[in-house]
Amino acid sequence: MRTAAPLLLTPGPLTTSARTRQAMSQDWGSWDEGFNQLTASLCEQLLAIVNGADSHYCVPLQGSGTFAVEAAIGTLVPRDGKVLVLINGAYGQRLAKICAVLGRSFSTFETAEDQPTTAIDVEHLLLADPTVSHVALIHCETSTGILNPLADIAEVVARHGKRLIIDAMSSFGALPIDARQVPFDALIAASGKCLEGVPGMGFVFARKETLAAAAGNSHSLAMDLHDQHAYMAKTGQWRFTPPTHVVAALHEALVQYHEEGGLPARLGRYADNCQVLLEEMAGLGLRSFLPAAIQAPIIVTFHAPKDPRYQFKAFYERVKAKGFILYPGKLTRVETFRVGCIGQVGRSDMQAAVAAIAEVLREMEVLDI
Amino acid sequence: MRTAAPLLLTPGPLTTSARTRQAMSQDWGSWDEGFNQLTASLCEQLLAIVNGADSHYCVPLQGSGTFAVEAAIGTLVPRDGKVLVLINGAYGQRLAKICAVLGRSFSTFETAEDQPTTAIDVEHLLLADPTVSHVALIHCETSTGILNPLADIAEVVARHGKRLIIDAMSSFGALPIDARQVPFDALIAASGKCLEGVPGMGFVFARKETLAAAAGNSHSLAMDLHDQHAYMAKTGQWRFTPPTHVVAALHEALVQYHEEGGLPARLGRYADNCQVLLEEMAGLGLRSFLPAAIQAPIIVTFHAPKDPRYQFKAFYERVKAKGFILYPGKLTRVETFRVGCIGQVGRSDMQAAVAAIAEVLREMEVLDI
Repeated sequence: MRTAAPLLLTPGPLTTSARTRQAMSQDWGSWDEGFNQLTASLCEQLLAIVNGADSHYCVPLQGSGTFAVEAAIGTLVPRDGKVLVLINGAYGQRLAKICAVLGRSFSTFETAEDQPTTAIDVEHLLLADPTVSHVALIHCETSTGILNPLADIAEVVARHGKRLIIDAMSSFGALPIDARQVPFDALIAASGKCLEGVPGMGFVFARKETLAAAAGNSHSLAMDLHDQHAYMAKTGQWRFTPPTHVVAALHEALVQYHEEGGLPARLGRYADNCQVLLEEMAGLGLRSFLPAAIQAPIIVTFHAPKDPRYQFKAFYERVKAKGFILYPGKLTRVETFRVGCIGQVGRSDMQAAVAAIAEVLREMEVLDI
Repeated sequence: MRTAAPLLLTPGPLTTSARTRQAMSQDWGSWDEGFNQLTASLCEQLLAIVNGADSHYCVPLQGSGTFAVEAAIGTLVPRDGKVLVLINGAYGQRLAKICAVLGRSFSTFETAEDQPTTAIDVEHLLLADPTVSHVALIHCETSTGILNPLADIAEVVARHGKRLIIDAMSSFGALPIDARQVPFDALIAASGKCLEGVPGMGFVFARKETLAAAAGNSHSLAMDLHDQHAYMAKTGQWRFTPPTHVVAALHEALVQYHEEGGLPARLGRYADNCQVLLEEMAGLGLRSFLPAAIQAPIIVTFHAPKDPRYQFKAFYERVKAKGFILYPGKLTRVETFRVGCIGQVGRSDMQAAVAAIAEVLREMEVLDI
């Protein structure tokens, strides 16, 4: 049994490195040049991950990832735009809800939670409704861990002269996205996911011309990315008080990201985590919800054991006592639980987590998996 | 000369204690019961500071204080409401801007930056315009450090049957406000001010009946305080990813707040800081912008020296090199700079800061103060 704080096998907040947390041991003046340099370096490094320096601005925003998603839609979709939202999980549903609350016209296309949206679907949808101006999708839907075929969909959207908004919250930094090859108006992610920072800020890569033309679109002062960018470009500062310690932690997390070998190394480690997890859980008889072909190496949904002695809350508490925090399922039709592959964890952590799960199932006398 | 990171004599982010920053050295699962308890304890302690447990809910929100101010206006002012905004500085201006962006009807009443709004002003304004439904004001306007007479204004607003929205960002926790005596619909503050936490979250004390009736008011999904509260009341969790480390730091900062002796002790220390600062700066010939009667012990605006050899940027850099980060002025008519009295600093820090300022003025050969 571990005595330290439990490892988070969750989709963010997740396990960060001691170095990253240590970066929060200093206070920063938000007006100070040293902090401005931290912000500028952060934005530059983030843009480089998507090869977006020529085409996009990086606009950081206070708050959770959802704040940045809402800010992107509110700022970059004109008030007379119409958004086609592609849905196969809770985060796609949330995109549609944001459009509804903001009063943006939208339509939805929903597939089952284990079925990616295809480029052919999008082709048909755009042909059927020429009033659509924007397509919005979730790259990796954290509800299940399903991967949607971003590059293929982006190609169709661009060919039809439409704009693309990508919620890449749980994929950015681990799954490759190249702004020179995948056309998008906005790609949104956050500090506390695959970059392994702490939660508290999001960021939007906004196409330069789109952002320049977006003055006055926003429904909100705090979430106006045009204003946020214009002020930062002029002063080097955030418009309103930045989460200084979160920014410093993300900067330090990026140093380690590059030391590890950047995106290929991060993806390699997560893919290994995912494979080890799937194999060892299969050894216990625990089945993954998604087929391997559409499983992103970010978070894995497992069917809950059928045994009536299994009960998620007790299972969770016992696994936590052994040092691992799991994540509940988010499906309504089937009982599941989730295990994250991301964060400052490796193969041996995944093995230890599965060993803990095995012990707990034995202790709970869960036999019918 | 100090070798450690400079002390922040700024209005937030400010200097926090090592214990508060140390509280960020652990990762928290946002779904975990341990974290839920942290949030619940935080809200309970915050409400107790204003004696608001019977009358108000505490709704925490991701982002900077301005996010919470916008959320309060967007959620608690009905779409057909009209806000009278009292202005004597940049943060009052921002309140008006939020109303404008959100499409809420509003009028403004502006006094000079060294002139508090009075209860008599508000009486006349409410008599003159019966369509006003809400009055919004800044308790302590950080632009200058001026204190507005909150209790008197609140009495007039209540007598006219209107609702009050208080931006108490830089006063909450240090200046007493009692919800049992000062009627308000919303009071807004943030983590990184007089509570001496780190920046990254705000909170709104919302009158229970007002919040209950506020479903559907909000212009935003992320900033909908009704939704945020309803979800938290049901699940114990934040609706969207919380800034876990910021929450843990604020919780630890509150432990120290109580150890120090709560609000009276915090106010006592800041008042002492302010007095020492004013006295020692006066000894150098540096004059404060505000008369003592309307100076809050939060941040002090000083007239810049008249000497042409004084230049803020060089002055700032030299004082920083000696271990103290000052704050620029925010007035357009007169050249000023500001020194904060808040944060984990005491009398000897203020004395050392003034000594550093004196040395720098000598080094810069600034003679005509």
